[in-house]
Order: sequence, then C-alpha cells, then structure tokens
Amino acid sequence: MIRADLIVDGIGDLATLADGAIPRVGDAMTELGQLTGAALAADKGRFVFVGSTRVLEREVRLRPGGRRVDADGGSVVPGFVDAHTHVLFAGSRPTEATLKVRGATYAEIARHGGGLFSTVRATRAATEKSLLDEATRRLRGLARHGATTVEVKSGYELTPDGELRLLRLIPRLQRLTGLNLVPTFLGAHAIPPEYADRADAYVDLVVRTMLPAVAKANLARFCDVFCEPGFFTVEQSAKILRAASALGLRPKIHADEFVFSGGTRLAAEVGAASADHLLESRSRDWAALAAAGVTAVLLPVTPFASMVTKPGLGRAMVDEGVAVALGSDCSPNSWVESMPVVLAHAVYSARLTPAEALTAATVNAAHAVGEGGHAGMIALGRSADFALFDVPSVEHLGYRVDPVPVLVSRQGKPVPSR
Amino acid sequence: MIRADLIVDGIGDLATLADGAIPRVGDAMTELGQLTGAALAADKGRFVFVGSTRVLEREVRLRPGGRRVDADGGSVVPGFVDAHTHVLFAGSRPTEATLKVRGATYAEIARHGGGLFSTVRATRAATEKSLLDEATRRLRGLARHGATTVEVKSGYELTPDGELRLLRLIPRLQRLTGLNLVPTFLGAHAIPPEYADRADAYVDLVVRTMLPAVAKANLARFCDVFCEPGFFTVEQSAKILRAASALGLRPKIHADEFVFSGGTRLAAEVGAASADHLLESRSRDWAALAAAGVTAVLLPVTPFASMVTKPGLGRAMVDEGVAVALGSDCSPNSWVESMPVVLAHAVYSARLTPAEALTAATVNAAHAVGEGGHAGMIALGRSADFALFDVPSVEHLGYRVDPVPVLVSRQGKPVPSR
Repeated sequence: MIRADLIVDGIGDLATLADGAIPRVGDAMTELGQLTGAALAADKGRFVFVGSTRVLEREVRLRPGGRRVDADGGSVVPGFVDAHTHVLFAGSRPTEATLKVRGATYAEIARHGGGLFSTVRATRAATEKSLLDEATRRLRGLARHGATTVEVKSGYELTPDGELRLLRLIPRLQRLTGLNLVPTFLGAHAIPPEYADRADAYVDLVVRTMLPAVAKANLARFCDVFCEPGFFTVEQSAKILRAASALGLRPKIHADEFVFSGGTRLAAEVGAASADHLLESRSRDWAALAAAGVTAVLLPVTPFASMVTKPGLGRAMVDEGVAVALGSDCSPNSWVESMPVVLAHAVYSARLTPAEALTAATVNAAHAVGEGGHAGMIALGRSADFALFDVPSVEHLGYRVDPVPVLVSRQGKPVPSR
Repeated sequence: MIRADLIVDGIGDLATLADGAIPRVGDAMTELGQLTGAALAADKGRFVFVGSTRVLEREVRLRPGGRRVDADGGSVVPGFVDAHTHVLFAGSRPTEATLKVRGATYAEIARHGGGLFSTVRATRAATEKSLLDEATRRLRGLARHGATTVEVKSGYELTPDGELRLLRLIPRLQRLTGLNLVPTFLGAHAIPPEYADRADAYVDLVVRTMLPAVAKANLARFCDVFCEPGFFTVEQSAKILRAASALGLRPKIHADEFVFSGGTRLAAEVGAASADHLLESRSRDWAALAAAGVTAVLLPVTPFASMVTKPGLGRAMVDEGVAVALGSDCSPNSWVESMPVVLAHAVYSARLTPAEALTAATVNAAHAVGEGGHAGMIALGRSADFALFDVPSVEHLGYRVDPVPVLVSRQGKPVPSR
C-alpha cells in the first residue's frame, strides 16, 4: 500500500512527458506520455503514483490530514520550467510602450535615457528589500501561472559588488517563493556607461574579478553573455564563456537576437547549455547546435513586445532537428508572467505544435537549465511539481491564448493564488 | 455625508475615462481622467464617490457590514467592455492549432471538416445545459480578467430555431454570471451546409423568418453579418442589415477581414454601430467610417491566432481620425478570455498606445455596443464596475503582456475568482 499526503483524481488528461529522450525534437502529442482518466499521488513532496484512478483506489491510501483534489475532468501537466528570465530588476518602463508604437527603436529609446540602462540605474539604487519584494511578486506571478522551476539571471548592476548582490538574492527568493530557482551570472549583459569606451577593460573585470568571485561563493550555475554588436563581440563573449567554463559555470548565450553576428555558432563551439533568442540566426548554424547538443531557447514574447516577430522560427528549427526549449524572458522589455501565454506565442508565432510547445516548456527547458534529472516531468520519485488546468485535454495549452491554472503544486503543496 | 457599502482606498493610480467625448480618437494618458492617491466608494451597486482619500475620509461613511478594500498602491480602471465575442459555442478545436502551424489555411481546415462548421455541428447537437455551462465558464474567465460588459453573438446554429435558442440563453447567462451582456443576432455568420448552393435562399430565411422572430421576442440589440467572399456578399449583407434596421436592430459588420470586399464602406453606408476586424480594409474607407460615426472594433488576438498579423493597423486608423474599440473575439478560433492580453496585442501588434488601448477597451467599446451611457467609465451614478490591478500605474495595462486583476467588481460586488 502506497501512502500519500496528496491525491488528485478525476484527471481528464495528463501528460507525464516522462517517455523518450531529453531534450526532444518534434514530439507529437501521442509521444508525451498521455494518460486519460488518470490520477496522481504525492507524498512528502514527491510523486508516489501516476496512473489510472482504478489502480489508485486499490494501491494508494491518503494519510490522515492529507488532501484530496477532484480535477473534475481537467488536465494536468508538469510544472513549467521557465528557461530564461530577468526578473531581478527594479522599476518598470511603461512609457517605452508608447514610444515603441510610435516607431522608436531599442537604440533610440536607449539614447533618450530609457531602455536597459535606465533599469541598471534603478536597480543599482534599489534596496535589497525592494528588489526582493519586486522579484517576489514577479516570481509568484510566474508560479500562479504554472511555473515551478525558473532560471533567474543577474545583469542589471554591472559592477562586481552589484552583480554579486543580485546573485545572493536568488537563494532568498527561492525561500520566499518556494520555487526551484536556477541562478545565472550575466555580468556581461551590457557594457556599463562608465566603461563605454573601454569594453575590453569591462571584459577583463568580468573575467578577472566577477567570475572568480561568483565561482568561489558558488552563486551561479551558468554564465550568460549578451553577444551582439554594441554589447559583446563574439571574441569577447568567447573569452568570458571559456573563463566561466574553466571555473565550472556552464555557458549560455544571448545569440543572434538583433542581428546575425555569430553567437549561435559560438554556442556550439563552447558547448553551451543553451543558445537563446536566435531571431536572426542562420539555419546553417542550427546543425552545429544540434550536433553539439546545445538546446535552442526561444523566447517568443520578446519579438512580440519588441515588435519584430519572426513567424515560423521554431517550426523551422524543429524541422531541422534542433531541440527547442521555451522561456518567458520576463523583463522590463517583455513583461510576461504566464508560461501558458508563452506557449500560445510559441504556437501562433514560432509555430510549434501545442505538443512541441509543451515539450519545450517542460523537459527541454529543464534540460536547458541543468534540471533535466529533476524537473519537467511527472514521474515517480520526482518533485511533485504540476499544474492543473480546467481544460479537457493538454493540447488546449498552446491552442488557447491565455489559460490560467486552477491549481499549481510545488513539491506537493499548492502555490498560493496570490 | 455619503453612505457607501464598498470603499476602495489606497489606489495608486485611477483612470476614470470620464472626461471627454465618446467615442474618442487617440487619447493620451493625461486625458483619461487620471487620479493619483485616489479612493472610490459605491453604494447599492453604483459609484457614489471618486476622488482623493482625504476627501473620502471627510465625506464618506461605510455602512455597517460594508466592505473596505486597501488597494495597496494598485491601479483601478473601469470594468472592461468586450465589444465582440462568440462565446456561445459547444466544443473546441485544439487539433486545428497543429494543422495551422504546419501551414493549413482556414479554407483547407474547413474542407477537412474542421473550422466553423464543425462548431456549428457541435453546437446544434449540444443541450441547453451544456451550452450554458460552457459559455458560463468562458464568461467567468472574461470576468476574472476584468471584463464586466460583454457583447455575445449567436451564429453557431444557423437555423431559425437554433439561432433563437442561442439568443434566449443570453439573459440566462447574464443571471448566471452577473455580467452585463449585450446580445447580437448573427444568423448571417455563414451559409449553412444545407444551403450551400442556395445562398440567396438562406438570406431570405434570415430576412423573412429569423429577423422578425428575433425582433418580436426582443432577443437582440444588434444584427451582425459576416461580409466576406464565400460567406455573404456586400449586396446580401446590405439586404440583411437594412431589414434589421427597419426592425430596430442596429447593424454591425464583420468587414474586410480575409480580403478587401467592401464591408467597411457598407458599414458607413448603413450607419452601423461598428465595423469589426478590418484587417484588409483600405484607408480610403476609414474617412467614411469616421464621418458616419461608425466605431472600428479591432480584434487583435484573431490575426495572431490566425497567423496573419497586420502590425500597425490600429495606429494608422487612430492617426487618420477613426474611433477604435477593442474586443476579444473569444471563439474556438481565437480563444482568449483576458482583456488585458487583448490590450497587449492592441499595443504590440495594432500599435495603439497603452492610453489608446485602455480607451478602446472601455469608453469606446461601450459606445460600440450601445452602452456608452452606462459602461466603460468610473463616474458617479454609474454601475460600480471596475478592476483593480497590482501595478503602480494604469499604463502598465497594455505595457505588460498578461496582467491579472486582484479584484474585479461588478455593481459593487466582487467577481468570484473562480
């Protein structure tokens, strides 16, 4: 007899995502480990049963004081893994939306004191308490929409003390939110104004001062670089990522987002965990990603909010054999807290099928953030992270534009609805 | 002393939308009747105070048993008016998302038994109870995201009895949801299969049988037509709408959505309340809309979900003096229940400013559905319909991709969060 402190039965449709390789390319919905008329049970934060309601009734007993939830025919998926966020920032930039619709470019907004550097100024000036409060709200928003594992980058202070300050907040945010957070060092988010004409000196600061301090204090699992003209060249990015690798931080790259400059190819060369954005990447580099086992992390809300959509990018990548993952890119420039909304953009803009989008937002995203062995699937012994939606089948995610889950569980505990 | 059964104070930012003409063209945020450090009060379902917290403390008393809400610096806007929905349908069509991302067109999906006619088959076969249950879920979804007035069309039965059956459900849905629902007769949604080669006979059925029955039973305020090649020609649409006008139903038109065929011009000619979709409309017809006082209802999620986006359409219309409103177009083809998500598409795709999008989703949408005197603004004596968001200013709506309100009030009563 299996003991459980949480039972969910009456599930109309459940996708375990537990069959097949990680990461995956182009799964059809039938390959997602779907169960209909299903039930699941968890105990002490881990899945202890996934199967039919009939077998559950025979084999599982609810502990005294345990919780039983009737899914009422709804659908259950693994807790989403958000593979790319910038939630650690202060303030907001709503007026830029008005500038953008009137035709201002990212570069023009930056020249008028807006954009990334206005967020850097606000973040440097913010207290730890306000940063924790603001990031907690965003992370709770992501959690309410079904995310249970979230990658979080530094990158809005761009000083040794500031970047370390941001990274030190991440374990505290994990305690405050109950989410599984994956920290990424992004000291190379931009050349800060005080190094405007001394980019190489800033690269040296990142390599000689920041990275060793981050590694020594064990504050990040990944090192990311914004590889783009005006930010970091391919050579500078390579220097930073090779230094990070030597210190045990796996590379990630913001690659070929604004223009094609070679970041995608570099991701394959340095064995990055992921290459992210990729809006202007060339298909000849995708084979290199696939061969090197680099996951392509698509962030389909970002081109929407930047008004430069590239319809069909995800479809083309999957059709060429690239493993695709998804992230929200939640930031002041693309402020989205709903992974289901990200899935809809993955379908209707990047043109993944709903099955591919769900794979990309669970197992593949987990792989992209080094959590392939822990998150992104519903399987015995894994953390009981899942989301229940009031929809009759899992492919309604991605098909509907904005579904909101009725229950989100992190380690078997319901995520507060606010 | 003013008595109130609901007080909301601590509002960081409030947009009354109560200043200026209805409908409006191109409002900047400063023209939205913004108040900072504000409070509001309602009694017996109507606003009785809107102003500063200081004055509220002096002039308003909470009745015994009344409710006081601390907005905690959040922002309040009028309850959204959703000017265009098709929520009265049975079933769903998730597999079409997979077909669409692989390149199938609307017409191809229809030829394979999918699309609109599969929803007609499902709706005709559905019991009243299941239709009420399904539509109630969708309307509650819209309400939870801040909509308090919603236009609802018939159109998925396409028989005299069926269309009347759908319209008769709307007052029942109003009682079930507590929302302010505006019924529109859309018997001319498509030529049903049984009239496939006899379009004019179906037009006669609409004009001679359906419309008089709808008018006699007072079941709809508007008559809408899907004016598009393969659906209803401009001549057929004109015939239906002129007959509707003579019976007291104001015209609306699904105009120039797939191709340019003249529906926009017809809307001006027949004095329609609104012309909707307009993706392929020509700017030379926009002046006619403006001159005739026809509101342009944009449905920016639909081209997203149909994968035919027209960036900048709203911007161009406002710049040419057209009054623009917004709707979700919630339907099996564009299933969205969040007006804030619609606002984000209005900003990032149609390229309205956040201020214009908010105007379009409140006062202008109210005007488009004949509720300009009742809904869409926060003003003394009006129904206390509003939404409170945990954002520091109202322009975060439209700027953020998917904000979810923390409190929605319809006639001074909180809308259940589920």
